Amino acid sequence: MMENNIIVSSRIRLARNLKELAFPSRMTKEEFQKLNLAVKSAIMESNTPFAKTLKYIEMDSVPETEIYAMVERHVISPEFARKCAGKAIVLSEDESICIMLGEEDHIRIQVVKSGLSLEKCYDIAERLDTLLCDKLHFAFNSQFGYLTACPTNLGTGLRASVMLHLPLLEATKQISLISESVNKIGFTVRGIYGEGTSGEASLYQLSNQITLGISEKEALGNLTTITEQIIEKENDARASADKLALEDSVFRSFGILSNARKLTSEELMKYLSLIKLGASMGILDIDNNLPDKILVMGGPNMIMRKYGIMEPVERDIKRAELVRDMLTKGKTNEI
Amino acid sequence: MMENNIIVSSRIRLARNLKELAFPSRMTKEEFQKLNLAVKSAIMESNTPFAKTLKYIEMDSVPETEIYAMVERHVISPEFARKCAGKAIVLSEDESICIMLGEEDHIRIQVVKSGLSLEKCYDIAERLDTLLCDKLHFAFNSQFGYLTACPTNLGTGLRASVMLHLPLLEATKQISLISESVNKIGFTVRGIYGEGTSGEASLYQLSNQITLGISEKEALGNLTTITEQIIEKENDARASADKLALEDSVFRSFGILSNARKLTSEELMKYLSLIKLGASMGILDIDNNLPDKILVMGGPNMIMRKYGIMEPVERDIKRAELVRDMLTKGKTNEI
Repeated sequence: MMENNIIVSSRIRLARNLKELAFPSRMTKEEFQKLNLAVKSAIMESNTPFAKTLKYIEMDSVPETEIYAMVERHVISPEFARKCAGKAIVLSEDESICIMLGEEDHIRIQVVKSGLSLEKCYDIAERLDTLLCDKLHFAFNSQFGYLTACPTNLGTGLRASVMLHLPLLEATKQISLISESVNKIGFTVRGIYGEGTSGEASLYQLSNQITLGISEKEALGNLTTITEQIIEKENDARASADKLALEDSVFRSFGILSNARKLTSEELMKYLSLIKLGASMGILDIDNNLPDKILVMGGPNMIMRKYGIMEPVERDIKRAELVRDMLTKGKTNEI
Repeated sequence: MMENNIIVSSRIRLARNLKELAFPSRMTKEEFQKLNLAVKSAIMESNTPFAKTLKYIEMDSVPETEIYAMVERHVISPEFARKCAGKAIVLSEDESICIMLGEEDHIRIQVVKSGLSLEKCYDIAERLDTLLCDKLHFAFNSQFGYLTACPTNLGTGLRASVMLHLPLLEATKQISLISESVNKIGFTVRGIYGEGTSGEASLYQLSNQITLGISEKEALGNLTTITEQIIEKENDARASADKLALEDSVFRSFGILSNARKLTSEELMKYLSLIKLGASMGILDIDNNLPDKILVMGGPNMIMRKYGIMEPVERDIKRAELVRDMLTKGKTNEI
């Protein structure tokens, strides 16, 4: 399988709930505090070097811009960001690990790594699961497995996903057919910010839907197989595309991004996707990970986190500045 | 008057006819030969250093690609190019002087110089006129002046014009209003390849229409005055334009032209116009004359003259290559 930088990242999410509390949708303010304290203590008390790399953060202490910047960095879910008053997270230094407390479930362990690294992510998530399980009482049923707020997570509570860059499957309109067919076998394809979002920058998240009556290993294995099939289709589409038109689009996108004086988020995503395609196909000589980095750094709240609160027009100017700067540096050396 | 590189070039054209021949539309093949020979001899016999810089060229000896490349370089008219079998021209080394024989009139003396240089062009045209007049018998009427095939040239036979770059008057749709109002006072605004062509690359040719009952000096003076007024309007429009949007368009155009892998003539003209605007407004640091040079070099026949006969698709690739090359060199040193 020619991977071609099509797999941007892998993500594991485990949903866990405490026996003694109602599900978050019916929890009181005091119960959220109880939840926060229970998880915080479990981590602190474990006192391992691993646990010491994690930081407990109360969302009320985080400025709004930073909250939405965290969404743009895929650290927390948009759903959690919208209703995070009185809630908390546990975060690793590099933000690859985030435990959201009081999202849809009491505990959502999330581990994200770049490229195809489902096993690695799962190993880390399992370690956290064990660490928490030692101190807390998870709602578990011997017949069903882990109990969750939504029945779609019942069983393993595991959602494994890969973020895929599929510009040619998108351009050739194959993506909706693929989406339909993977749905039938228990997988979902959706936009980069999760449920209900579209495939911006041609990025699509492929994840398992089945959590009941299947082991974690099987779930990861199936996801890997489907991922390989989709990558093959994307590669086929790349191979049969009009090479000249593709090269032209890639270089024009590079020309626009490295020269524009104002850039909307939508434009940035559109052109970055083409640059990313160009980098992975060897058309454009830039660091393969640079487009992904620029995509995150160019988010509206990431811009405001860096330069301060500002109007959309000013943000478009700052975004263009930042992108020019990152692209210029990225052509010669690592950012 | 802030000229701002708005005047691309100045052009003088004198129409003259020989007493002893019918107008070209009714001439036989033998009469064209007679005309060619008469003019050729007049120039050769004058034997001055000036006349020695001129070259007599029979159009039958010029390859078709080169004929249309001459149109793209504004050396001959499209009308002359279409019907040039058996005809001839007299051309200076730098192509700033061209005498077309057997176009609409027997003799069309054309002198073109860059920038505002109507007087200079007129001086040269007058010298040629005198040189030819010494040896030939021009059709001249003491009441009307020079007799011409079309009554619109009767009198001085002089057409003076300036090629203007008017991107903001075009964008703000003022150009058609200006065109209407100058028409009323005996001037015409039209596209760069003369009558019946549109304003490609936002280039417009402003010329006098009145040749009867007016001296050459007056005609040039009036044209200069109108030119100054139009330049002022273009400068006003530039001053009141959205600066950010303008800069953004200029830089994006530069980015596209210096990166594209295929370029149509239409795209080249569109983006070059913006780059030219950027250069003249000090937004873009490139040689002010570079866009004009690229515009000429990028013409379909100019491309084929350089790289050989080819299909439009291949031409678009070669055009993109040439433009990238010229822009890269032009940023640091003169081409």
